[in-house]
Amino acid sequence: MNQIQESTTETRQETDIFGPIEVPSKYYYGAQTARSMIYFNIGLPTDRMPLPLIEAFGLLKKTCAIVNKQFGLENKISDVISQVCDEIIDGKLNEHFPLSIWQTGSGTQTNMNINEVISNRAIQILNGIMGSKKPVHPNDHVNKSQSSNDAFPTAMHIATLLELNRRLYPALNYLHSELKKKSEKFSSIYKIGRTHLQDAVPMTLGQEFSAYTHQIVMGIERLKTCEKRLYELAIGGTAIGTGINAPKEFGKFVAQTLNKLTQLPFVDAPNKFEALATHDTMVEVSGALNTLAVSLMKIANDIRLLASGPRCGIGELILPENEPGSSIMPGKVNPTQCEAMTMIAAQVMGNHVAVTIGGSMGHFELNVFKPLIIRNVLHSIRILADVCHSFTIHCISGILPNTPVLKRYICESLMLVTALNPYIGYDKAAEIAKKAHVEGLTLREATLALGYLTEEQFDKYVKPENMI
Amino acid sequence: MNQIQESTTETRQETDIFGPIEVPSKYYYGAQTARSMIYFNIGLPTDRMPLPLIEAFGLLKKTCAIVNKQFGLENKISDVISQVCDEIIDGKLNEHFPLSIWQTGSGTQTNMNINEVISNRAIQILNGIMGSKKPVHPNDHVNKSQSSNDAFPTAMHIATLLELNRRLYPALNYLHSELKKKSEKFSSIYKIGRTHLQDAVPMTLGQEFSAYTHQIVMGIERLKTCEKRLYELAIGGTAIGTGINAPKEFGKFVAQTLNKLTQLPFVDAPNKFEALATHDTMVEVSGALNTLAVSLMKIANDIRLLASGPRCGIGELILPENEPGSSIMPGKVNPTQCEAMTMIAAQVMGNHVAVTIGGSMGHFELNVFKPLIIRNVLHSIRILADVCHSFTIHCISGILPNTPVLKRYICESLMLVTALNPYIGYDKAAEIAKKAHVEGLTLREATLALGYLTEEQFDKYVKPENMI
Amino acid sequence: MNQIQESTTETRQETDIFGPIEVPSKYYYGAQTARSMIYFNIGLPTDRMPLPLIEAFGLLKKTCAIVNKQFGLENKISDVISQVCDEIIDGKLNEHFPLSIWQTGSGTQTNMNINEVISNRAIQILNGIMGSKKPVHPNDHVNKSQSSNDAFPTAMHIATLLELNRRLYPALNYLHSELKKKSEKFSSIYKIGRTHLQDAVPMTLGQEFSAYTHQIVMGIERLKTCEKRLYELAIGGTAIGTGINAPKEFGKFVAQTLNKLTQLPFVDAPNKFEALATHDTMVEVSGALNTLAVSLMKIANDIRLLASGPRCGIGELILPENEPGSSIMPGKVNPTQCEAMTMIAAQVMGNHVAVTIGGSMGHFELNVFKPLIIRNVLHSIRILADVCHSFTIHCISGILPNTPVLKRYICESLMLVTALNPYIGYDKAAEIAKKAHVEGLTLREATLALGYLTEEQFDKYVKPENMI
Amino acid sequence: MNQIQESTTETRQETDIFGPIEVPSKYYYGAQTARSMIYFNIGLPTDRMPLPLIEAFGLLKKTCAIVNKQFGLENKISDVISQVCDEIIDGKLNEHFPLSIWQTGSGTQTNMNINEVISNRAIQILNGIMGSKKPVHPNDHVNKSQSSNDAFPTAMHIATLLELNRRLYPALNYLHSELKKKSEKFSSIYKIGRTHLQDAVPMTLGQEFSAYTHQIVMGIERLKTCEKRLYELAIGGTAIGTGINAPKEFGKFVAQTLNKLTQLPFVDAPNKFEALATHDTMVEVSGALNTLAVSLMKIANDIRLLASGPRCGIGELILPENEPGSSIMPGKVNPTQCEAMTMIAAQVMGNHVAVTIGGSMGHFELNVFKPLIIRNVLHSIRILADVCHSFTIHCISGILPNTPVLKRYICESLMLVTALNPYIGYDKAAEIAKKAHVEGLTLREATLALGYLTEEQFDKYVKPENMI
Repeated sequence: MNQIQESTTETRQETDIFGPIEVPSKYYYGAQTARSMIYFNIGLPTDRMPLPLIEAFGLLKKTCAIVNKQFGLENKISDVISQVCDEIIDGKLNEHFPLSIWQTGSGTQTNMNINEVISNRAIQILNGIMGSKKPVHPNDHVNKSQSSNDAFPTAMHIATLLELNRRLYPALNYLHSELKKKSEKFSSIYKIGRTHLQDAVPMTLGQEFSAYTHQIVMGIERLKTCEKRLYELAIGGTAIGTGINAPKEFGKFVAQTLNKLTQLPFVDAPNKFEALATHDTMVEVSGALNTLAVSLMKIANDIRLLASGPRCGIGELILPENEPGSSIMPGKVNPTQCEAMTMIAAQVMGNHVAVTIGGSMGHFELNVFKPLIIRNVLHSIRILADVCHSFTIHCISGILPNTPVLKRYICESLMLVTALNPYIGYDKAAEIAKKAHVEGLTLREATLALGYLTEEQFDKYVKPENMI
Repeated sequence: MNQIQESTTETRQETDIFGPIEVPSKYYYGAQTARSMIYFNIGLPTDRMPLPLIEAFGLLKKTCAIVNKQFGLENKISDVISQVCDEIIDGKLNEHFPLSIWQTGSGTQTNMNINEVISNRAIQILNGIMGSKKPVHPNDHVNKSQSSNDAFPTAMHIATLLELNRRLYPALNYLHSELKKKSEKFSSIYKIGRTHLQDAVPMTLGQEFSAYTHQIVMGIERLKTCEKRLYELAIGGTAIGTGINAPKEFGKFVAQTLNKLTQLPFVDAPNKFEALATHDTMVEVSGALNTLAVSLMKIANDIRLLASGPRCGIGELILPENEPGSSIMPGKVNPTQCEAMTMIAAQVMGNHVAVTIGGSMGHFELNVFKPLIIRNVLHSIRILADVCHSFTIHCISGILPNTPVLKRYICESLMLVTALNPYIGYDKAAEIAKKAHVEGLTLREATLALGYLTEEQFDKYVKPENMI
Repeated sequence: MNQIQESTTETRQETDIFGPIEVPSKYYYGAQTARSMIYFNIGLPTDRMPLPLIEAFGLLKKTCAIVNKQFGLENKISDVISQVCDEIIDGKLNEHFPLSIWQTGSGTQTNMNINEVISNRAIQILNGIMGSKKPVHPNDHVNKSQSSNDAFPTAMHIATLLELNRRLYPALNYLHSELKKKSEKFSSIYKIGRTHLQDAVPMTLGQEFSAYTHQIVMGIERLKTCEKRLYELAIGGTAIGTGINAPKEFGKFVAQTLNKLTQLPFVDAPNKFEALATHDTMVEVSGALNTLAVSLMKIANDIRLLASGPRCGIGELILPENEPGSSIMPGKVNPTQCEAMTMIAAQVMGNHVAVTIGGSMGHFELNVFKPLIIRNVLHSIRILADVCHSFTIHCISGILPNTPVLKRYICESLMLVTALNPYIGYDKAAEIAKKAHVEGLTLREATLALGYLTEEQFDKYVKPENMI
Repeated sequence: MNQIQESTTETRQETDIFGPIEVPSKYYYGAQTARSMIYFNIGLPTDRMPLPLIEAFGLLKKTCAIVNKQFGLENKISDVISQVCDEIIDGKLNEHFPLSIWQTGSGTQTNMNINEVISNRAIQILNGIMGSKKPVHPNDHVNKSQSSNDAFPTAMHIATLLELNRRLYPALNYLHSELKKKSEKFSSIYKIGRTHLQDAVPMTLGQEFSAYTHQIVMGIERLKTCEKRLYELAIGGTAIGTGINAPKEFGKFVAQTLNKLTQLPFVDAPNKFEALATHDTMVEVSGALNTLAVSLMKIANDIRLLASGPRCGIGELILPENEPGSSIMPGKVNPTQCEAMTMIAAQVMGNHVAVTIGGSMGHFELNVFKPLIIRNVLHSIRILADVCHSFTIHCISGILPNTPVLKRYICESLMLVTALNPYIGYDKAAEIAKKAHVEGLTLREATLALGYLTEEQFDKYVKPENMI
């Protein structure tokens, strides 16, 4: 199962400084990619370098090609690179990026995979000979003024921001808006509140949902506070942060050009040494995702507990029934969307630990846990976004209050006795509660049995809506 | 609050190779301890090196003193060292070990703290001059044939085993025995089982508790599988594992002598390089504690959910009421023992991550996260042991089934309809269940209303005890 | 990118109790799988339920079909189920299992995916009409006497054991044997030991590698101690552990039959309630993998530090050069295999936290983090196995000692001065060391300059081989 | 060792709704505290509720007493409560707060401990009878308009902010300023950069330290972004967030009054339900501490690697020698401050996992992992602050560059060959590097030997300062 099987027998020869190597003809990648596939046959085909990173690299290489026009790159070469990058951005060349996440920790092999694919595809467009590196050289042209060491972290930041913006924020906004709707819709449905899992004083179901709503608002806010640092790009630092072999303002120009292409406020990182040697900002983002996972775990757990039953649980909520729960048992609606959500929350917490460890273990001028870090951050974003969307549309939007149950609990609860204190005093109130508890009565029944109040008085005094 | 305040102004002079330093006269420790208190004023007084480690060091130093008789240590010196070690083991000298956990990663300063205290207390016993290092020298006599690098990891293993044997195993055995009693006592109390938090088919409360019981059996078994490797001692490896400056069979003799003193099967570690440079076995133990925490989290969570209510929750269990839950609300018993348990489970999982990271980051011949590792393992053992004892005596032992509720759920549950399939067929059974669900009837009511069975037939066919 | 694109427009109708649904004609799966793809479009196509689990399910369903012959399943039906299971086991039907990991937490949808595929493929073999559920019904025949709740955890244990046995153990044995070879080969190469990253006393390179070798021996031992509990199977417990709807000894017969098919010592789980409601044993296995990751992190870190350089690092080891390190810089061999290894170690530690959290959060009779748990355990096993193999063949096997450097350090090190104590006393020895340190001399040079020994004496007394 | 030993035999009787209980006369606490000590004898005396939380409670109770003047609390009572709170804030009553962290998950017992101590101490001041609850009642007066459920989380936020402001920020600012000084001081010391632990191109030591400096700047910035949410207080929400039994604007008034007392911008939490039921903001803060730990791990690791040696390591930095490294070995300076730092970084990462898990597992209207969460956050802040201070003063401030070594590496490194490309072309440059590598020459030697350049030319072209 972990074999990379190539049915094709046709190959062409590519070379790098280690010499020639055969590459399947149908792929655009070259010698260094082919070599990596031999030396890093790890976890394939599942654990491939994530596609949003490839796309971000496409965007970066295009931007560099544009900027390099100012620094001597021929227009023709620049333009064809841009053209190929557009194909990469559009996902048309995905199959040409077969490398494992588990490669060199700088991601050099993926940077070379990109360079090689762009080179060969550009050569093809220009009717050259693939593998000849002419007229578009993977290093001299595509990688011009760049190093894997600054290009890879730059692509990490770009990919993270792209995925946050197009996947996670929309999903969170959707979840937020549906929770808010429910919160408003349920604003006059009274229910018993619970602390320590024990019956407490009344509230509205809308208030309960307002907490979830607010958690999501804060979750988005927390992610947004990381953006300032995410927009800072390592590019221009080249091999170790000094910018050797790159024009002095290369990083600034790339950030500016990328702004124009993406409408996102990228800037030149203020300290390139930090930007290569650490990924503290990625750890920070992972921390914000971890906090979001914490929020979502709470929300999904609450909802499945509130929907537990149908007869022998809490049963305050009715969830939409999306798939057969039991073939004979009506009303058994398994909270499967909550289950997917809580599993993903646990995964994100685990991913965060991996990012934390990888982030902490850089040495000197380069952190070499880059592929690990970007893999886990993109994975967390992706599954959080997908599950938030799924959870919203397939669960939250369709939630109904189980009104009879909600009412019954309010009536049965003994905690409402506190409302009688002002009228009959603490001692009699406690006596009522005790009688109700021991004899299994409602408060109303116990109060009337003890003769402390009339029916009218009781109904007038004990109103959950006055306790909120 | 983090000041180490010494009300005493009396001091004596102690020296090490850095020269003289003033030490409070009332303490036995010497120059290196005093120096550590200046350079590592971190987290004090809370984060002191844990006392079980000090005790284990007492045991180790005594053992070495005994073994060293064979290698030229005068009987008189050996005996007085043993005498002082007994005082340490008995906890009489605890205040003389003030150092922070957060010191040198080899624990050298704590090893010297022990050596200095033994030296000075022995000198005092022998009417010498404290600080003179005569006639009992902290290095030449107390630390003879040892290095911090082998003594500290040896004490780590000893302390872990002592604490497992005297704290955690008894607490787990107690918890196990009380759970088993409940499981047996509840063996014919029928209840509804729940999957996905939804009503499922019947079982007995005893069966439910048998799962908890079995989890504890396995938890003990998992810890015991680590013991083989824990009994392997680093001592004899000295500075880097080669045993330089120690007699060839020193490690073997120490293990043998320690066996006699403790009745525990200590052995010489088969590879001393591994024993100094790694703490994989401590990570393993921490992993077993982590698994135990997972078990306990599940058990405590279940119990508080089953005891939720009193009116608006599941309410199948009645927990002992240990402290005021609500001043006016009878029956509101907060599951506080479960809360202590689940908090501790979370702490142990966090401690495990700290141990994992520390364990992974050794360099070459020495892991220098030793104090971190032993602190977290001992902390996990201690709080798990204490909470298991507390949880058992103050919660498990006093749990009562809420029989009316358990019965009502069995009656109300719709899942028992499956028992009718053989008699009236799947379709009619489903019709009954649907009617009951929609109209809020019991199965019995719905069956009779539809006229598919008589009362006698229904009661004969639908018996939870036949579904188990 | 997260779309499941079906180029085919041909569909057939399948039904479940929710009614009819269109399914692509080219796939064997049925209504419940199709429904899951709509409701759980999460993380696809990357995060598909892992194939070793599908294979384990193939093995389990075959075993159940064989056992069910005793309980009324027609031979013909049983045999065709076995035939299809063999195709699943051989990986021929992989494309028919498209479901996401992130589905219902019991894995019901994957169990149904298996049942549906077996049903339809068997129907096809028997020339029936796909989707008709005749003559091989996904529930009545393929799932006979099973529930997702016992089948899924059973498949989890089987898959874990298969992957350990065929992937991880061979890779670890290979790594162990190559480390052992190096340890033996380097047994008389002297080197300086290092503690706290500082020069210490001498040892052999073989001794250093013996620690790594021993770590791997212990890592295998730790995994093996979990096997006893992994061989215990949940099957026979059905919905909640009581075994409702299954013959009494079903679990025992399945374990026995599976033993014959696999030659692995599976047994009936002693407590089925525990086996469904918890995955403590999976957490335990994950803990053993975590400890292994800790070992591997240490080994890979050491090796890359020892190979640092070529001129400005420690430079004691020469690693094989697998790919271009620098186009112009000879001798710059990036420790890329170590980088893959350390990234994977961090990932396994993160996966372990996810498993721990998921394992701790079961409720009542069912843990509903099953897909999360098996995904992470199988992922950890797979990437550890692959990287151990890669690391061994592409790094460890080709490691060479950098003999001149190793020798130079021994000569230059000041720690060997300790060997002179017996001959000239501590004070003169310290004087020599100090002079050497301050003036940048070797010990030999300093000794001769001070005139304390002759050349012959020095060379006779200061021999690393006597310090080991 | 885990006994709470009370040497005193004198007791007085205190009562709560459970009846009378004996309390040691010398303590101010009352019945509920005494009961908690019986039922939660867990991890004591080490694991006591942290003192900064007690102090924060002192501040909160004082503030509430002031605000309660508007709501009917007599001036005399309010004033004496304030007076006692000042004693608590000043740490004068620390011994009266003996409770374990591991108690009820709402922290109710600690809230009552505070209420009881204030009540009894106030009674004492007013010459009343301790235990009489007159004239200052623990509930009616001290806890007026509060619940443990809103008071405890409020104290959590206050304590966190106090500790950040008075401990962690000053320590980080100090570390930052000393790193910045070094970065500036080392701005023209050239050195070899390293990527993948392999020699790379040149940079300055100042640049290397600028990365560390920037990490700390960002670490402070990240913590500050959490403050907005930390300043939001739960108080006013009372039992479940509805504010039952509290005046409507109580929370607002408390925040305003607290602002005046502390000069910190506290505000009323916008959603009280979220503020009681979750601690997402504490998880967020813990995440920022985790990111800081990641930064500090990198910095401390780099520094000890750069200082490795003295003869057989990298040896570019000379660390201050604070304690004996080796009794005979001059120059062996163990990087003990780095070791304390890296151990603490690992601890903070572990604490963060505990907080994450605890934060995710709240139910309904109350998160009952409050003591766990505040314990870990305060612990992380405390040890980070202490170690940053220690690390700065005892390590960073005294770091010296090892100039001869730094120069030698620059001379010996082969990577500077890239500077010759423009003059002699790539091929000859590579030939030089290869010759130097194989024959162990410097680049200069190899260049001259090959006759490609004169000495003058070489020295003119190969200048590290031009490569930066």
